[in-house]
Amino acid sequence: MTKGLKIATIGGGSSYTPELMEGFIKRYEELPIKEIWLVDVEAGREKQEIVGAMAQRMWDASPYDVKVYTTLNREEALKDADFVTTQFRVGQLNARIKDERIPFSYGLLGQETNGAGGMFKAFRTIPVILDVVEDMKRLCPNAWLINFANPSGMVTEAVLRYGKWDRVIGLCNVPVMAKMTEAIMLDSPAEDLIYKFAGINHFHWHKVADKEGNDVTPQIIDKLYLEDNGLPKNIHGVPFYREQLDQMNMIPCGYHQYYYRAEEMLAHGLEDYATVGTRAEQVKALEHELFELYKDPALNYKPKQLEERGGAYYSDAACETIASIYANKNTEIVVSTRNDGAVPDLPADCAVEVTAYLGSQGARNVAFGPLPTAERGWLQVMKAMELLTIEAAVTGNYALALQAFTINPLIPSGATAKRVMDELFIAHKAYLPQFAEIIAKLEAEGISIKDEKVQELM
Amino acid sequence: MTKGLKIATIGGGSSYTPELMEGFIKRYEELPIKEIWLVDVEAGREKQEIVGAMAQRMWDASPYDVKVYTTLNREEALKDADFVTTQFRVGQLNARIKDERIPFSYGLLGQETNGAGGMFKAFRTIPVILDVVEDMKRLCPNAWLINFANPSGMVTEAVLRYGKWDRVIGLCNVPVMAKMTEAIMLDSPAEDLIYKFAGINHFHWHKVADKEGNDVTPQIIDKLYLEDNGLPKNIHGVPFYREQLDQMNMIPCGYHQYYYRAEEMLAHGLEDYATVGTRAEQVKALEHELFELYKDPALNYKPKQLEERGGAYYSDAACETIASIYANKNTEIVVSTRNDGAVPDLPADCAVEVTAYLGSQGARNVAFGPLPTAERGWLQVMKAMELLTIEAAVTGNYALALQAFTINPLIPSGATAKRVMDELFIAHKAYLPQFAEIIAKLEAEGISIKDEKVQELM
Amino acid sequence: MTKGLKIATIGGGSSYTPELMEGFIKRYEELPIKEIWLVDVEAGREKQEIVGAMAQRMWDASPYDVKVYTTLNREEALKDADFVTTQFRVGQLNARIKDERIPFSYGLLGQETNGAGGMFKAFRTIPVILDVVEDMKRLCPNAWLINFANPSGMVTEAVLRYGKWDRVIGLCNVPVMAKMTEAIMLDSPAEDLIYKFAGINHFHWHKVADKEGNDVTPQIIDKLYLEDNGLPKNIHGVPFYREQLDQMNMIPCGYHQYYYRAEEMLAHGLEDYATVGTRAEQVKALEHELFELYKDPALNYKPKQLEERGGAYYSDAACETIASIYANKNTEIVVSTRNDGAVPDLPADCAVEVTAYLGSQGARNVAFGPLPTAERGWLQVMKAMELLTIEAAVTGNYALALQAFTINPLIPSGATAKRVMDELFIAHKAYLPQFAEIIAKLEAEGISIKDEKVQELM
Amino acid sequence: MTKGLKIATIGGGSSYTPELMEGFIKRYEELPIKEIWLVDVEAGREKQEIVGAMAQRMWDASPYDVKVYTTLNREEALKDADFVTTQFRVGQLNARIKDERIPFSYGLLGQETNGAGGMFKAFRTIPVILDVVEDMKRLCPNAWLINFANPSGMVTEAVLRYGKWDRVIGLCNVPVMAKMTEAIMLDSPAEDLIYKFAGINHFHWHKVADKEGNDVTPQIIDKLYLEDNGLPKNIHGVPFYREQLDQMNMIPCGYHQYYYRAEEMLAHGLEDYATVGTRAEQVKALEHELFELYKDPALNYKPKQLEERGGAYYSDAACETIASIYANKNTEIVVSTRNDGAVPDLPADCAVEVTAYLGSQGARNVAFGPLPTAERGWLQVMKAMELLTIEAAVTGNYALALQAFTINPLIPSGATAKRVMDELFIAHKAYLPQFAEIIAKLEAEGISIKDEKVQELM
Repeated sequence: MTKGLKIATIGGGSSYTPELMEGFIKRYEELPIKEIWLVDVEAGREKQEIVGAMAQRMWDASPYDVKVYTTLNREEALKDADFVTTQFRVGQLNARIKDERIPFSYGLLGQETNGAGGMFKAFRTIPVILDVVEDMKRLCPNAWLINFANPSGMVTEAVLRYGKWDRVIGLCNVPVMAKMTEAIMLDSPAEDLIYKFAGINHFHWHKVADKEGNDVTPQIIDKLYLEDNGLPKNIHGVPFYREQLDQMNMIPCGYHQYYYRAEEMLAHGLEDYATVGTRAEQVKALEHELFELYKDPALNYKPKQLEERGGAYYSDAACETIASIYANKNTEIVVSTRNDGAVPDLPADCAVEVTAYLGSQGARNVAFGPLPTAERGWLQVMKAMELLTIEAAVTGNYALALQAFTINPLIPSGATAKRVMDELFIAHKAYLPQFAEIIAKLEAEGISIKDEKVQELM
Repeated sequence: MTKGLKIATIGGGSSYTPELMEGFIKRYEELPIKEIWLVDVEAGREKQEIVGAMAQRMWDASPYDVKVYTTLNREEALKDADFVTTQFRVGQLNARIKDERIPFSYGLLGQETNGAGGMFKAFRTIPVILDVVEDMKRLCPNAWLINFANPSGMVTEAVLRYGKWDRVIGLCNVPVMAKMTEAIMLDSPAEDLIYKFAGINHFHWHKVADKEGNDVTPQIIDKLYLEDNGLPKNIHGVPFYREQLDQMNMIPCGYHQYYYRAEEMLAHGLEDYATVGTRAEQVKALEHELFELYKDPALNYKPKQLEERGGAYYSDAACETIASIYANKNTEIVVSTRNDGAVPDLPADCAVEVTAYLGSQGARNVAFGPLPTAERGWLQVMKAMELLTIEAAVTGNYALALQAFTINPLIPSGATAKRVMDELFIAHKAYLPQFAEIIAKLEAEGISIKDEKVQELM
Repeated sequence: MTKGLKIATIGGGSSYTPELMEGFIKRYEELPIKEIWLVDVEAGREKQEIVGAMAQRMWDASPYDVKVYTTLNREEALKDADFVTTQFRVGQLNARIKDERIPFSYGLLGQETNGAGGMFKAFRTIPVILDVVEDMKRLCPNAWLINFANPSGMVTEAVLRYGKWDRVIGLCNVPVMAKMTEAIMLDSPAEDLIYKFAGINHFHWHKVADKEGNDVTPQIIDKLYLEDNGLPKNIHGVPFYREQLDQMNMIPCGYHQYYYRAEEMLAHGLEDYATVGTRAEQVKALEHELFELYKDPALNYKPKQLEERGGAYYSDAACETIASIYANKNTEIVVSTRNDGAVPDLPADCAVEVTAYLGSQGARNVAFGPLPTAERGWLQVMKAMELLTIEAAVTGNYALALQAFTINPLIPSGATAKRVMDELFIAHKAYLPQFAEIIAKLEAEGISIKDEKVQELM
Repeated sequence: MTKGLKIATIGGGSSYTPELMEGFIKRYEELPIKEIWLVDVEAGREKQEIVGAMAQRMWDASPYDVKVYTTLNREEALKDADFVTTQFRVGQLNARIKDERIPFSYGLLGQETNGAGGMFKAFRTIPVILDVVEDMKRLCPNAWLINFANPSGMVTEAVLRYGKWDRVIGLCNVPVMAKMTEAIMLDSPAEDLIYKFAGINHFHWHKVADKEGNDVTPQIIDKLYLEDNGLPKNIHGVPFYREQLDQMNMIPCGYHQYYYRAEEMLAHGLEDYATVGTRAEQVKALEHELFELYKDPALNYKPKQLEERGGAYYSDAACETIASIYANKNTEIVVSTRNDGAVPDLPADCAVEVTAYLGSQGARNVAFGPLPTAERGWLQVMKAMELLTIEAAVTGNYALALQAFTINPLIPSGATAKRVMDELFIAHKAYLPQFAEIIAKLEAEGISIKDEKVQELM
């Protein structure tokens, strides 16, 4: 890795690409990139061209000589790459709209990475990532795969378990956001706080200490319940029940609200569904605006509006991960990685999301120790759900998919859940070749999509 | 144990007592009982006197000289007992009515041993059983505790973990019923079928082979889905999804319908709630009739109507367990017992419900081996829920109760669940001294019971 | 299995064959055998002919019409067999002599199934048993493999792990002998004692209770240390240290003397080595006598002298196992089988030796629960040693063999151990094709055999 | 901890104290110490006075105003301490001489921290450290205990398990030395190498990568076997068998030579025993010289000769640990600490020795993941041996001690081992009050010490 580095970014047409560029530019001195290859599928070609041009403008405005390539040929992009980042979305935002609207149309939660939607995102994404891994084995066998395609944890698990590829790091911005927020709450420099995270992607807890070693988790819990905690209002104003946080003395992650307050989060989602539209629909509008901005040949920096897109700091985490691996920086980052015992309540060979020190050998996980009873049980059933979802994604086995649906804590089992699952299969037919046979059977049974907006997208 | 045996039955006023007598009479030759002591609390005095007199008539009609005593003094009953059976219901059927109606009044499942109701039954029952165990340590330290007070699995776990009492067997009639039913389905003598059960009480699966060693689980699954399978219609006509049963190649237990088909089971329960009343209300009527029958001084045998009561064969299982321990018969029975590795997906020291051979040393569990992924995850979260419930029952910790509610797969988390929990605390105030402080606080907050029938019972 | 059964016995020329016949004759009414096929290799042809003729005489003297075939063609023997028993010894007794004499010639323990000798026996035997399993997959896929080729535990582990064959039971007479001996000690009918065994082959412990359920393990320990305990003198007069037995409150197995009293057992073995010769040499003489007897055309029953051979009741255990599987008798036998959690200190998927109920589905292991600290640790390192030995046997990897030697508690690590290993490789060259390359290298290095009697056998 | 810090050093009279002072002086800017309290027992008073005066001279020669106190009153020393370091040796070097000579006098290994000697050192040390912990609970409940009293791993385990004290770090210089040595071998700056250690104290393995992330473990193995590897000759010229190191692709620790080459290490020890005397005897002479030097009122720096003492860098590791905890430096150090899953082959709640990041919350262990089969098994039996030794140390149970002796891989079981154990009990009578009863019994049996030099020390 002494020469200038080659980065390949799969899903190059993503609106996040400028943030990724910003991260790379900021770290150029420690991460001497030479070429960045954006690669996307035909459906993303136009967006990739827009964002590719903008990316090149960003580098041109920097002191550094880096060339941004755009291509639809994945092999060309991967050939001899040093790092491969994945930020693709199989089926684009329309697929996400289906993941959200179909469950909501039956009164179930529709969400990108949790519940039924997250499972179908896994069904679509995992076969593609495993293809990418096979390509990497041939074309860039020493490269690292830095994944932020969602559901990031299941994708990492699939890469480790079925791809048999160890050089993978899964990223998420949730821990980044938690750390930033809590530093504000405690009025402390972020770097003075000591963190330990444990769990799986979008389902983890953490503990915090100050630089004197005092556990300040209770103070953060206090602040969470203050009217005026110096923060923007808590998401949807649904804090966790304080008794539970006090009892576990850990901070759950934001997505945990779907689990600890399922009723309210569902009600909120249904309200949006009935009025402003689901998150994907909102994001779609935002993305459209973003790409209009990106077209501006004068724009050579990341526009402010990108932050509204959600997922902020995602790309920064990715750039820091890459820099830390490349330059053996040993930065502490929360990542999805092989457990190796860090969360002893889960098997040592599965993927977890934990605090880790990242260096040229990858992640060195910080051992968290056993979780309290409630969190242990919940984590174990969630990991089982993930493993079933992944196995279904790989094998195209309908029964495994149904088993995963059934044990998912966010999906009440029964006919409605099965109907939602069947409609999702049909809605995503184009991206689920492994389930072709079952989908044909469902179509033959005359199962049709209820949600009208989804019908329009078919 | 060479002399005639003394049996103490706690909850002697139960309508099941005649079935117990029948079981003892049938086995007298191998189980030479001399005295049976029925003991109950003041609220059960009248019923106990009725059923005690009837029990004595049953023995008098037999060739055996056995004396049935009734008492309200537990110490007197336990003193030097050889076997202690527990079939008490703290708070009688009215408590069960509350466990069922309060959740239903908010659209949640109200059930005796599952969901919110089962947890409150545990809150009421566990302190009492632990008191019984303390008495046994003093008064009959070599006796066996044969429990069929529900929730039978949690009670067994509490006796092992907090009571530190190993000589306990938890019983349930669900496996007995499954075996009888499946023998009919397969048109096979029951004793020719080979069974392996694994799980926890009311949450277990089993596999079946014929006497040639062939796995006949698939044939049973086939029969389950036949219109004419030689059986009374499946409970509420809600069979499991066939894909799941084929995939796991195990038979779930009847209570699993609440988990695999939560939606339909809830809908059915709500319908009953709105019309004929919940199960406890129906049972209360049945019990009233039964006790009217029991009063008949001519009745000296178990009346047919008892079978409608539910829980048939419960007592028979108990009698066979006692006989098998006493005479070292090594009968194969499915029991709640210390795991010892039989279900390797759960800790070796927790209670499980498995196939076991019962002899004078107690249960010798048959090792089942690892469960499939879905069942493993689900079982692990259920055991976590049980452990939290028991710890809450022992400590009176509200937050642990809330944690248990939150991870219970049958309870959607959020404000409704919390409200249901709070109302249940208030409704059961008389039987939850360990939670006195929290209940006082809830009352001070003005939380009142919504369901009118429950209000009448207060 | 409704027709008359076909039994195939690999290693048919073994001197144990008459005992096997006796066992089958005794059980004919429940185990209706039609054909017994003895199969052996060319080197065993003569012995097989002698013992085959004698076996036929035994059946002819019985009321049953069973035909005994002898063949050198394994395929012919296995074709459509219902049960396959394995009692072969790769390299015959001369191989065992080498296993014993070479370690002793360097002052290390030489023993058939423990230490260096047991490991080389595994290296020779495992490839053959895996070949047998491959044949069975083609020729008799529904048959059961009843193994008593030593080292029986490692052979069972290899069949499960590398052969991927579940229908296997490993047998040993050590538990049988322990039960018989202890019944005499306690002056109790054997069937009145309740046993629980846990461990691995030749490395297990057990607990005993009487029919009233009282733990009588302490009484057995007492008797073990009595001068006059009604038994023949303890093997070599080396009882275990009483403090240890009292502390663990379990009875170790006979082979455990090599581990708990390594010094004395080694000294005893060295004395024999220097005087009367090792056990294999003694057995060889015994076997010669036995075969002389077997030649007598008038002999049609198992001769008394066979009992001196050692391994008595081995074949009876095998016959009972077969009968119990065939007739679903549910007999309680101690067998080597897949753990499934019965010994929770070892992985659920490895082979263990435990109390089990044998029926047409195979072994239903009795869960033993966790072992005490010392026994847990020792069992774990022994299982690791077994797994390494088996992997070396399968792969021909010298380093794995050295690792296994190094962690074996009976082998002090260092140059002498390595020399012993190297000489054993050379001595067994003809039966270790998987190690051909390493053996050629050792020969090229000029390593030669020190023991003169072994030299003569080369 | 904002004020000047108070350090209490138990075993203040140790010859290591000057090294400790040097480490503190070097780090004063980040570790603002105000008072250092040396505390020792009466037998160490003179040495403590000598070394205390010298320590004060070292500070006086520094720019810092730190006062060194000497006392025999432990309470005074501990009162309000911020850090407590423990470097005491119960029974002084004479006890170590006994630990070494008694086993050697019977042909067994006599070593300070391994085999019989290490176990008796644990028997003497653990009750004292648990007393210290009890004092700390009263006198300095927020202090950290930094232990380098040997056997450091067992001491840490005892503090965690029986002392119920979490604020403990166990230290050892073996990993420090390995890192320094390997940096020289690879001609690489030490800070460019990436390490992962796993195991328990004096029984761990590690892997090394370079700053590009390449595994350089194989290169280190290569260098270990080079004649000219830039290092002083390997200890006693007994390298590990190369096949094993290549196979495991890990570097064992120096003490592992006792296990992988038991024969040669024993022979070497016996030779020293017969000629120059054991290590303790050599160290005793060295210490005498050191204290003569320390008496020199002009000496105000650590003398060179201290390095020959062995244990170099021990104190530096301790000072860095303290500084890293105090200033939340997050230094990577290999420490004994609660596992928390870092070594998933051992229980999460036991002590392990692993790579950790040390900060104000203590150790954040780096998860190592599962070990290979051989190392897993060996580590499990060693941990069992430790747990038994500790339990025996706490309870004074002779049978547990015998169990620990029996499973210790360095002690061949049998009469000699038991005799060695019995003599050690008698020899250390003054420091083993918990075993008083058993020792009296042994004395009554007339067991006497064979080794003459030990007799002289009695």
